[in-house]
Parts: sequence; structure tokens; C-alpha cells
Amino acid sequence: MPSPFATAVASLTPPDGAAAAAAREHLDRLTKPPGSLGRLEDLAAQLASIAGVSPPPVPVPVAVAVFAGDHGVLAEGVTPWPQEVTAQMVANFCAGGAAINVLARQVGASVVVVDVGVATDIPPGIGDAGPDAPRLIRARVASGTANLALGPAMTAAQVDEALDVGARVAAELVAAGAGLLVTGDMGIGNTTPSAAVIAALTGLAPRTVTGRGTGIDDHRLEVKIEVIERALRRLGGREPLTVLAEVGGLEIAALAGFIVGGAAARRPVLVDGVIAAAALLAAAALAPGVVPFVIAGHRSVEPGATAVLEHLGLAPLLDLEMRLGEGSGACLAAPIVEAAARILGEMATFDSAGVTEK
Amino acid sequence: MPSPFATAVASLTPPDGAAAAAAREHLDRLTKPPGSLGRLEDLAAQLASIAGVSPPPVPVPVAVAVFAGDHGVLAEGVTPWPQEVTAQMVANFCAGGAAINVLARQVGASVVVVDVGVATDIPPGIGDAGPDAPRLIRARVASGTANLALGPAMTAAQVDEALDVGARVAAELVAAGAGLLVTGDMGIGNTTPSAAVIAALTGLAPRTVTGRGTGIDDHRLEVKIEVIERALRRLGGREPLTVLAEVGGLEIAALAGFIVGGAAARRPVLVDGVIAAAALLAAAALAPGVVPFVIAGHRSVEPGATAVLEHLGLAPLLDLEMRLGEGSGACLAAPIVEAAARILGEMATFDSAGVTEK
Repeated sequence: MPSPFATAVASLTPPDGAAAAAAREHLDRLTKPPGSLGRLEDLAAQLASIAGVSPPPVPVPVAVAVFAGDHGVLAEGVTPWPQEVTAQMVANFCAGGAAINVLARQVGASVVVVDVGVATDIPPGIGDAGPDAPRLIRARVASGTANLALGPAMTAAQVDEALDVGARVAAELVAAGAGLLVTGDMGIGNTTPSAAVIAALTGLAPRTVTGRGTGIDDHRLEVKIEVIERALRRLGGREPLTVLAEVGGLEIAALAGFIVGGAAARRPVLVDGVIAAAALLAAAALAPGVVPFVIAGHRSVEPGATAVLEHLGLAPLLDLEMRLGEGSGACLAAPIVEAAARILGEMATFDSAGVTEK
Repeated sequence: MPSPFATAVASLTPPDGAAAAAAREHLDRLTKPPGSLGRLEDLAAQLASIAGVSPPPVPVPVAVAVFAGDHGVLAEGVTPWPQEVTAQMVANFCAGGAAINVLARQVGASVVVVDVGVATDIPPGIGDAGPDAPRLIRARVASGTANLALGPAMTAAQVDEALDVGARVAAELVAAGAGLLVTGDMGIGNTTPSAAVIAALTGLAPRTVTGRGTGIDDHRLEVKIEVIERALRRLGGREPLTVLAEVGGLEIAALAGFIVGGAAARRPVLVDGVIAAAALLAAAALAPGVVPFVIAGHRSVEPGATAVLEHLGLAPLLDLEMRLGEGSGACLAAPIVEAAARILGEMATFDSAGVTEK
């Protein structure tokens, strides 16, 4: 039987150009100067192309999936934050106290937290507070990755398993009715593997795509860049599964699977910051057909995020100088996506409103 | 008895620096790396400084006021749209079919439409459909302005009356419970007086601040710039009331009054595109204390809007290449303002969530 990820890749279909064209035509009949809603009009046409109908359904409810994993590369001193914070933040997500919880509640989004690779214990009972509380999906592939500075972060089998976890979560959320998927992530140290994946898959220099993550100082930044440079010397090419195994992370691989799973189910996937960008780059390398289903939510401060957006020709909806992850930037952009669909579906036309055209 | 506008100017108070400092301190105790929410953190501190308390109340409900006026300068051929469209769009707003209605409904915002200077009749019954429908406030100061290419657009008395209309509407909306005010505008031809006001008050060349409005061609753009250059030659200085009278518009003056009224009532005022920018510039010239109460919602495509934002040191929350007006860009930014307040009020701290700090 093919794996969930392989099934998702095989079931990808192209966006519907006719629905996009119908959306564009209708947009020009609405009571506004043609093109005056700018990128909202592009977004409306994209949503129509994804749904295969114009006007598209309003993309609600919003479902945020926060994939959590730990990173062996922490041993190199790439961040001052201790590893235990990943599991503590998983508990915080499940208790509703993190930024993503606040932002998700505001837009009526559900939050699922997926332990795909946390290193430390997550006590029983966490993420089990009832149907309206954030849910924890226990799908741990390994208790953190190996140290990518010394050898492969993951085995090929672990990468496959993590891709499957992501694809399965996307399929589950869509089956439960999600109209829009939001990528979230948590993992102390995860801007290091993200920058490594981005450098490997874009061919850009590690120094160009590596940032300060949570706000590290110059010394740690140099350590981080050197670790990535060293690891990339091991890589013989840009084969995406090899890149993920050598220098990736479990939550990055799972997010790649999640993006492919969402696109396969023909749902818009709203991607967040640099971790999601690394995952998107891997997803696009494994299955180029995902890109038309992706909406870039927010331009992270991390330089790697912008490198990926440029590489894939995506323009983010927001640029608020955020660098938190969790899905926070993307979740904040969800109302704009919703607005694009509503504009197309709800506005009056010149004819219906009796407004004279120029 | 002092006028509503004079009363508002006199009752302006400075933002509360202590509340902003308390907000900053609390933000650094929340479960996220310091500063990682970027501009959302600045916005949270600004909301605290406006409300005078940290955390500030969530700035809801949102109230959008769309000020409508017509412009004698239409006789110069600055736009291909006929004047009657202003009144037709007022009817469209009141029927709920315009872009601003769609965007307002999504965020639970009310819409009031204010006829402060429409040139053509608005039939009885329009804007009178009940408490939940958009309401029309009939406060016409004149049936459109005079042609600013030939002489003053308004008398000094008309400017005063329009400022009062705006200040009164702001006070009314706040009295009815509004937590956030959004500026909206409608008026065929109104990017011409807006560019003229912006050029006059910033000292920038008309060519630098004049844009294509609804999308005019090169010929009309040249006509528009020449009209503005000619009108500005009449002006002897930058006195804001004189600038408004000579080259402004009734809805621009009313919006200036609205912004001052909102700031006087200590409510955040979310400003939209280039018409609101011209009004804001006039408001800031008449009462510099308003600026700390203002949030720039969206960067209009019109070059004059960016000129004003730079002049006042404001950074817009959104940049979606929109150029519709009506309050559309600002209304789309309202959820971000709400999110800033919710982050400050609802997130867990490191202590409360048991998360280790670095």
C-alpha cells in the first residue's frame, strides 16, 4: 500500500485555470474600479483556481497544525535556549497560552499540536482537554534528530515517516472540514536546519540565508553559519530527500508532508515563517505541483524565508517584522484570505447596484 | 459655545507613556523570545498608551465612517467617472453591496455613511433600513465643492462646518461604544484635491504626490498635475485651514475632523488610503497631538499616501497594492490591531506556563 505522502503526491492535480479566469471576469463587474483591490483580487482568483469554482467557498474553518521537533545540533551551541523548552511550549500550546493560541482563537481557528520529534517527555494528559481545546497528536518518529554537524540528522526511513505524519495530519484536518490549512512549528534550534535546507536547495551561501533566530549574538551566529557550512560539504547534490535526511528536521519534513497533503486535498495552505519556508522548498522540490496551492502568510525577519519566497515567486501577505514561528504570522494573515473570497462572493455588480461605469 | 471640532482640539491629551512602558515590560514576560512579534508589539504598546492602561481593552467594536463628497474640479476632466457615481455608491454602501460592506461585515464592524458634500440627490429612504444596516447621516454642507482650478473649493465657513461634521460623527460613534474608528471616503475625483492638499502641506511637487486614482491614462494624469500646479500657485503658504478651503474637499475636511474627534476621545483611529492621508496631514497640522492616536492601515498605491506616511513617520500595517478607498485597506487591517491587544492581554507568561527562559 502506498504511504500517505506518496498517495498525496500521486493525487496532486493542477489548479483550475477556468475558475481563475471566471473569477477575474467577475471581479471586473464588481462596483469598484478594475484592479483597485490589488493583491486581494489575485488572491480571490487563486482561491477560485484551488476550489475549482468561482466564487470559491469562504476558506473556513481555519486549521493550524503546529509540528514540534527537537534538534541534535543544539550541542553545537547554536542557541541559548534549552531543549526542554520545546516540550514546555507543547504543553503551553495545549493549555492555550501561546501566541498562536491567541491568534487562532481570534479567527476561530482550531489548533492541533503534533509531536513528530520532541526530545523530552510530554506527560500523559497534555493535549487531551476535550474537543474544543488544542489537541496533541502523538506521532513521534524519533526523540529529536541527530547532530547534523557530525552526520545525518535523520535516516531516510525517518524522513519518510515524518513526511507521512504531515500528509496524514493534513488529510485528517481536511476530512474534519478545514477550509484553510496553516503551517505551524516549534523546535528549539530549528532555524539552523531550516537555513541548511534552504542553502542546500537554493544553492545560496549559508551566510546569505542564516539569521539570528530567536535573537542570537554575533558569536553564536558565526558558530551557526560554520556548522551549516560544514554540514553542507557532506552533501553531494540537491536531492530533496537526501537534503532533509542530512541537514533537516523532523518537523520540517512533517511540514513538507503537510503542505503536499493540503494541496492534494485542494485546500489553500497558508505558510508561516522560515521553518515552513524550508519545508515548502522541500515540498516543492519533491512535488512542484504544490506551489499554486500555497499562500505566503508573512515575511519572516529571517533572511532564509525571503530567499525561499523569491526562489518560488511568492509574495507574502504581511510583513510585520515577526520571527516567532508557531504559525503566528500565517494565522494573522488568515482574515485577508477570507476577505478575498468574500469580496468575490458578496460584492454587488455595477448592474445589480445600478452604478454607472466610466 | 465652541464648535465640536474646537472642543475636540481643546480636549486632546497626550498618550500615556507609563501604560506603554508597562505594556513593553509585560510583552517581555510572555512566552516568546523578546521582540519576536515585531510590529505587533509596537502596536500593543501604542494601544496601551491610547487607552491609558496595560493591557488595553480589545479595540472592538470597529466603526467605519465613510464620508462622501463631490468635487467641482471634475469639470477639468481629471477622471473618466461621472459625478453621479458618488451618490450611486452612497446607495450601494447603504444597501451593503460595496467592498467596504463586505470587509466590515467580516470583522463585525458597523458602517455609517456621511453625506457631507454629495452633489446629486440621495433619495429619501436610503440609509434608513434599520439598526443593523449601514446608516446614512445626512450632513451635507454643500452640494459638492467649487472647481479648485478656478478658485477656492470651499469657503472658510464650509471648511469649519465640515470639520464639525467629522468631529461630531467621531464623538457619536465613540458614545455608542466604538473601540476603534476606521476612516472611509467616497467621492469621484477626490484624489485630485487630496494630492493638492498633500503637495501644499508637505511642500513636495504635485508631480511627486499625484497618482492615477481609479486608473487614469497618461493624458488625464498630465491634466490632473497641471490643475494642481495651477491651484497651488494661488496659495501663499501652508496654513492648513486655507489649504483645505483653496484645494481641499468636503469629505477631506470632515475626515480631518473625524480623526481629531477620535483622538480626543482616546480611541485608536485606523486610517485608510490617500484621501484619509490628506485629511490626516491637515488634522496633524491643525492639532499635532492627534498623530500618536493614529494607526496607518494600508499603503495605498497612490504616491501621495506614502508621502504623508513618511512625513508623519508612520508605517502602514498592510501593503496589498490597493487603491479603492472607502476604508477598505484600513478595515482589512483591523484584525491586526485587535490581535495586538489580545496578545498583550491573553498570552501566558514564562512563569505562569512553567516555560524556562534562556
